[in-house]
Amino acid sequence: MLIATPQSMRFDAPLPMQSGALLHGYSLSYETYGTLNADKSNAVLVCHALNASHHVAGVYAGQDKSEGWWDNMIGPGKSVDTNRFFVIGVNNLGSCFGSTGPMHTDPHTGKVYGADFPVVTVEDWVTAQARLLDALGIRTLAAVLGGSLGGMQALSWTLQYPDRVQHAVVVASAPNLTAENIAFNEVARRAIVTDPDFHGGHFYEHGVIPKRGLRIARMIGHITYLSDDVMNEKFGRQLKETLLDHASGYKYSTQDVEFQIESYLRYQGDKFAEYFDANTYLLITRALDYFDPARAFGGDLSQALARATCKFLLVSFTTDWRFSPKRSREIVKALLDNKRDVSYAEIDAPHGHDAFLLDDPRYTGVVSSYFNSIARALEVFPPPGRPKAESTPSGGSAVRVATSLGALSA
Amino acid sequence: MLIATPQSMRFDAPLPMQSGALLHGYSLSYETYGTLNADKSNAVLVCHALNASHHVAGVYAGQDKSEGWWDNMIGPGKSVDTNRFFVIGVNNLGSCFGSTGPMHTDPHTGKVYGADFPVVTVEDWVTAQARLLDALGIRTLAAVLGGSLGGMQALSWTLQYPDRVQHAVVVASAPNLTAENIAFNEVARRAIVTDPDFHGGHFYEHGVIPKRGLRIARMIGHITYLSDDVMNEKFGRQLKETLLDHASGYKYSTQDVEFQIESYLRYQGDKFAEYFDANTYLLITRALDYFDPARAFGGDLSQALARATCKFLLVSFTTDWRFSPKRSREIVKALLDNKRDVSYAEIDAPHGHDAFLLDDPRYTGVVSSYFNSIARALEVFPPPGRPKAESTPSGGSAVRVATSLGALSA
Repeated sequence: MLIATPQSMRFDAPLPMQSGALLHGYSLSYETYGTLNADKSNAVLVCHALNASHHVAGVYAGQDKSEGWWDNMIGPGKSVDTNRFFVIGVNNLGSCFGSTGPMHTDPHTGKVYGADFPVVTVEDWVTAQARLLDALGIRTLAAVLGGSLGGMQALSWTLQYPDRVQHAVVVASAPNLTAENIAFNEVARRAIVTDPDFHGGHFYEHGVIPKRGLRIARMIGHITYLSDDVMNEKFGRQLKETLLDHASGYKYSTQDVEFQIESYLRYQGDKFAEYFDANTYLLITRALDYFDPARAFGGDLSQALARATCKFLLVSFTTDWRFSPKRSREIVKALLDNKRDVSYAEIDAPHGHDAFLLDDPRYTGVVSSYFNSIARALEVFPPPGRPKAESTPSGGSAVRVATSLGALSA
Repeated sequence: MLIATPQSMRFDAPLPMQSGALLHGYSLSYETYGTLNADKSNAVLVCHALNASHHVAGVYAGQDKSEGWWDNMIGPGKSVDTNRFFVIGVNNLGSCFGSTGPMHTDPHTGKVYGADFPVVTVEDWVTAQARLLDALGIRTLAAVLGGSLGGMQALSWTLQYPDRVQHAVVVASAPNLTAENIAFNEVARRAIVTDPDFHGGHFYEHGVIPKRGLRIARMIGHITYLSDDVMNEKFGRQLKETLLDHASGYKYSTQDVEFQIESYLRYQGDKFAEYFDANTYLLITRALDYFDPARAFGGDLSQALARATCKFLLVSFTTDWRFSPKRSREIVKALLDNKRDVSYAEIDAPHGHDAFLLDDPRYTGVVSSYFNSIARALEVFPPPGRPKAESTPSGGSAVRVATSLGALSA
């Protein structure tokens, strides 16, 4: 079992942010897995999404159940093989899991940042990640990898530091949010901000937490992470308990839990409100809203992505309605317009947006194949014999891999 | 212009409800349009959805902008022609628009019902509507008509009173809610119930209104009423105002309105919180959750609908993801399994669930044709010459009308 060790690096040089603000001194929490090779060519950066951290893979010593959030994908002999690659997970600025965020003290005021933590963007995160790599002595990434919001960071890397990235793996992501995506984020934010315990974002000083708002935010999030189909399969119209008073089995209550799906959502909301920071939630959803590399090019994504020079793997999931395959295809098309080398897999998985975190041999197979070819090109630690992960993905008919959209739509 | 006059009828006989509760004396608000013919054969009942009332058509005297919620569909010379039909709109029990509801006084306790108003179901509403028809001396409905939750009531009429309905028109509806539908309802309810101003549903006594919760509930609702496409077309990523401080035009704020979609949702939420009752919201969403005629038949909808003997028109809209065409097709299939006479139109409209309230000549054309044929069969007020509404719907290729699912899938 891979044992992970969280680390932290302090940066004293202020970080100029996209908003015009300066972040004066900050720390980044990170973890690394595997060994950096002599020519420092095997580094892979993993970017995280809303509810995750630098703890990507492995477990903490003595804590068997503390698997990293992408432990099924990353580790010794896994799709991103830490026997061959030096993998880095970084916690983003503004998070509540270690890196400098709203619950830390602003050195300039001596007060907790709270709602005054500067608005961070995907681009700011990437800038901070690049500084970490500088400090680790890593000039070039063999690959940058991320799902959802993490995929946006991977894409942004190829635009902000095109000469420092050889491959970008962008999973279940989008070139920007749709109006509907922004709408869901906004409702979640309003639930938090209008919770009387939010106190304008300075709730720490009041010794309270806006848990009501956080619960609602998380419940909304959960609905959008799942597909309608998988919700019907997992929960359907099942009742939490069936009363014998009525033929229907219903309790007939507007406030009690009646259906299993309600119980599930309430549980997820309660759990989240215990550990997630409200200001972090606002910051991270805003970073999602703001990301839009085509914006500076009048909405022309092909022009925006012309700067990217690396090779790409895009992966999407058919039932993901939050970041639908259509959005990944927009990226693929824009890259092909620039004659970039792009692989694209659209995986017929039932789990909705959550699929990017789940085990699916077709999905992990595609990622394995891609990283195996990177490893071969780099001649890093060739695995003994044919690696298991390189076997043909099962259910091949449902995985459509193409290097042109023409081939895909055929 | 049709002038509407709201009326009210008092019922002293208690109403036995599905939950086992008894409602002791209640009033129903209603409106009628047109004239009941001598043999009382031309009555059409219109059932309303979440945010509507008995004010279906026309305007109130001296209030030009007070059009009924389905005024585009119902009125003199319209699809449901009040020159030929006697149309009745009823406000449902538990509503906040006139009929007895949570803000009224429970005659048994002398206190405002609040959260103690008994849980009402679609079936209870239909029972109350049938009593109103009894009082109006109407035995048989030429048609019962409704969209969304109103469609569920129309469907329930055909099961509770099969011998009192000749035609049922069920628009943008479903045989029950999916887990995802219930999930959205539950988040909205939790937002209301956990608002500190809700006071366990007895906020009237505290002189406050749980507006925070109502706003969130309405914002969630609005997202699900629209399609992703129509949201992108109407709002896209447009900013509320473009600042010149940054190339992006962004304000960089987590709490201010940045995008137009946010402004729209906040406005809708604020407006709704001014006039809608929180307890009514809980009751009506629960009525949606509970409706499930197949439940008593082990989930077999064909068995459940065997009781229905009338003719049906089902209409769905391709971009409606709240009550998708798939759900309407389930009803069509179950009716065909019972060899019932069913027409089905699936309309390629971009507006999502909201389409059922909007003007679309293909949609209104289908409804017109259906009601014209009812009128012809009834020989009620044959219109002079060929009525305009009977013309072939435009964009015919996008309207698929069929009496068998086989023909549809071909």
